Amino acid sequence: MKYQILGVVLASVISGLFGLKIGEHAAAKPAEEVAGEEVLRHVVLFKFKDDASAEDVQGVEEAFAALPGKIEEIRDFEWGTNNSPEGLDQGFTHCFFLTFHSEEDRATYLPHPDHKLFGKALGPHLDKVLVVDYWSK
Amino acid sequence: MKYQILGVVLASVISGLFGLKIGEHAAAKPAEEVAGEEVLRHVVLFKFKDDASAEDVQGVEEAFAALPGKIEEIRDFEWGTNNSPEGLDQGFTHCFFLTFHSEEDRATYLPHPDHKLFGKALGPHLDKVLVVDYWSK
Repeated sequence: MKYQILGVVLASVISGLFGLKIGEHAAAKPAEEVAGEEVLRHVVLFKFKDDASAEDVQGVEEAFAALPGKIEEIRDFEWGTNNSPEGLDQGFTHCFFLTFHSEEDRATYLPHPDHKLFGKALGPHLDKVLVVDYWSK
Repeated sequence: MKYQILGVVLASVISGLFGLKIGEHAAAKPAEEVAGEEVLRHVVLFKFKDDASAEDVQGVEEAFAALPGKIEEIRDFEWGTNNSPEGLDQGFTHCFFLTFHSEEDRATYLPHPDHKLFGKALGPHLDKVLVVDYWSK
């Protein structure tokens, strides 16, 4: 009886550990990172106007970073500020890197009201923008 | 005594499972994809000369794609050709997206002999290039 109880406890612990493992794995690995699966990347570069304040720039960063919470078609999102030592940045200081799973999702994103609102808030501070999209190989 | 032995067995099983879990975790998920861990992205855009032939362009694509096999500091690599409908690409047709784990690794890559050789092969066909690097947020 003691062994049976301990067996059940052991099985429960093992099963719990496996369950935890599977759960963590699934949560940590977004579908778009599955090896070999092509995704649609959307690369956006900004150069702000010289008179844009630090607060203006931070406001744009935060507004862009809020879009994935509003537009579910954005499957992955990251961004950062340029630190290349090569001097080939043509003045661009910010890179935003979005991932879609289809051209249909991009077609939903581009005219999306929340994207348009962001564009309106961005406009007054923007000197230039560059966008390229590609299916990842 | 029985409880002590079973305790040791239980501890051993649990520890083994944790070991397995950590091992599988590391194997299944490249370090650069660990959630919340910043990586150094290196974004390279090319516009080829008008007189670059399809073979010239393909040669550059293949030569660039061969670099991760030669330079271990390149932790991740993908590329693709622009298909943005927005008309904000400024003529850039190719995006290469490299990942480093440190600025030291980038400092090894930039002057690496294989990178330099690639640059020499690329040069005659290149109209313009743009590079931004960022730590992903």
